[in-house]
Amino acid sequence: MPPSAPSPRSRIRRLPERAHYDAATVAAIVDAAMICTVAFQIDGMVHAIPTIHWREGDHLYIHGAKASRMLKALTEGEACVTIALADGLVLARSAMHHSMNYRSVVIYGRFELVTDPAHKLGSLRAFVDGLYPGRWDTLRPITDKELNATGLLRIALSEAAAKVRDWGVKDDAEDLDWPVWAGVIPLHTVAGEPMTEADSVVEEVPLTRFD
Amino acid sequence: MPPSAPSPRSRIRRLPERAHYDAATVAAIVDAAMICTVAFQIDGMVHAIPTIHWREGDHLYIHGAKASRMLKALTEGEACVTIALADGLVLARSAMHHSMNYRSVVIYGRFELVTDPAHKLGSLRAFVDGLYPGRWDTLRPITDKELNATGLLRIALSEAAAKVRDWGVKDDAEDLDWPVWAGVIPLHTVAGEPMTEADSVVEEVPLTRFD
Ligand SMILES: Cc1cc2nc3c(=O)[nH]c(=O)nc-3n(C[C@H](O)[C@H](O)[C@H](O)COP(=O)(O)OP(=O)(O)OC[C@H]3O[C@@H](n4cnc5c(N)ncnc54)[C@H](O)[C@@H]3O)c2cc1C
Ligand SMILES: Cc1cc2nc3c(=O)[nH]c(=O)nc-3n(C[C@H](O)[C@H](O)[C@H](O)COP(=O)(O)OP(=O)(O)OC[C@H]3O[C@@H](n4cnc5c(N)ncnc54)[C@H](O)[C@@H]3O)c2cc1C
Ligand code: HEM
Ligand code: HEM
Repeated sequence: MPPSAPSPRSRIRRLPERAHYDAATVAAIVDAAMICTVAFQIDGMVHAIPTIHWREGDHLYIHGAKASRMLKALTEGEACVTIALADGLVLARSAMHHSMNYRSVVIYGRFELVTDPAHKLGSLRAFVDGLYPGRWDTLRPITDKELNATGLLRIALSEAAAKVRDWGVKDDAEDLDWPVWAGVIPLHTVAGEPMTEADSVVEEVPLTRFD
Repeated sequence: MPPSAPSPRSRIRRLPERAHYDAATVAAIVDAAMICTVAFQIDGMVHAIPTIHWREGDHLYIHGAKASRMLKALTEGEACVTIALADGLVLARSAMHHSMNYRSVVIYGRFELVTDPAHKLGSLRAFVDGLYPGRWDTLRPITDKELNATGLLRIALSEAAAKVRDWGVKDDAEDLDWPVWAGVIPLHTVAGEPMTEADSVVEEVPLTRFD
């Protein structure tokens, strides 16, 4: 049985053999990525803005200034959230069969504002500790003023599709002996040498999710 | 004099000190990134799809199946193209001053179809050779059928804004001696160990733009 999409608009039509609609695959890609692009409309015009995200259960969360245009627009209409991870370069014998390995997710729906202070606080903690395990409790405590200036939004992962390519080169059979290198070059995101602020009173660099 | 935006909708309002509107900054970010997200509308609904891009002069190019929904929709209405590079994790003494270093571009406009066969061919060659210098001439030559199945679109970089954060930690003055590490952890995309196809007749791995 082919996997089934959660809605007509999220059914993958091009290369549907790369489609996944199960919650576990979607969640794993959301977690593996740190940034997404949020597309929305204002007065019939389309906008798309890059933002950090994190996941709690069946929702993707974003944050920003309560006063920002994006956060306001998102409470007023539908959005499309896109996540893409570039995992590898695929080099084929023919130009057209060049490709990339990737993991991506497209989510449709409507964001809802998180207003309950305890929920907000808990989510921001999960956000910080998700990037830097245990860091929240070591920070200068957050103030009510800071919490009030911050807008927190979440969107359900219920109407989401994932598309994944994670295999080798697919060349036409008659091209296999063409004298050119064929293969996959993986791509990774890695953390570089930490740059401690001159006035940091602590020298020991915290763990991050990239370690 | 503050830099001036090419249009009202592309003027950066949040943290405008991070704004750049000059063609050189926009082009450098477009070139540094390999993938973008293209947002567009169909019947008043918003969609955003990740795609590879490349640049030639004042245009950003994308490619795909001529028959694809995205390519068709893009010739019929306006688009918003978003590029985001995550350059570093910024760890502050307070939760709220945590941030990222990044380079991003948002482009508004309308894609145009590239139909002239010589232009199409030249652009696809620039695409492949831009990723893998000199590779085009070593490949099994492209066929008319392949060229015909491929759709090529470009959008002018004239209505674009860039937003960049590339500095250290900005904490509140009274927090500077808080006993927690403060600094920036750079992020990089690197190429891993190439995986040669079992049936590749050539062993020598080509250069890529990630070398
Ligand atoms: C890193 C990366 C690079 C890519 N480069 C290219 C490229 O250069 N050229 C190209 O043609 N395509 C590229 N793709 C694939 C691209 O994202 C689209 O899947 C494809 O272009 C078909 O788009 P469509 O709107 O016509 O698809 P359709 O299959 O008609 O889309 C229908 C629905 O399927 C879902 N869907 C579509 N694409 C995705 C996706 N990627 N992830 C999750 N759900 C999806 C959405 O819900 C969408 O509304 C790339 C994808 C990734 C992740
Ligand atoms: C990697 C990354 C992570 C980010 N994480 C967050 C986050 O977690 N929370 C958050 O609030 N913001 C984040 N930002 C900034 C975000 O992209 C927006 O700039 C910000 O949210 C303000 O959005 P707005 O629509 O309210 O901006 P406005 O300033 O009102 O936007 C007006 C116009 O400015 C231009 N513009 C806006 N943002 C950008 C941009 N990033 N690049 C180029 N042009 C732009 C567009 O043309 C837009 O139409 C992040 C940016 C990047 C690149
Ligand atoms: C290094 C160069 C290239 C790379 C990295 C590349 C990458 C990709 C990727 C990632 C896709 C998306 C497939 C999907 O939907 O999952 C794609 C689609 C496509 N590419 Fe390329 N490509 C390259 C060169 C070319 C060339 C030169 C041609 C022209 C002959 C071409 C023709 C196509 C077509 C027709 C599709 C649509 C496939 C479909 O939706 O049915 N590509 N390409
Ligand atoms: C590790 C955790 C965090 C990271 C990586 C982070 C990152 C960011 C980034 C990149 C921006 C975009 C700034 C821009 O527009 O250029 C931003 C905006 C913002 N963040 Fe955070 N943030 C974090 C935690 C928090 C917390 C805990 C709060 C709540 C107190 C907060 C409040 C805000 C606010 C209010 C803005 C809007 C700034 C403005 O547009 O004026 N952030 N954050």
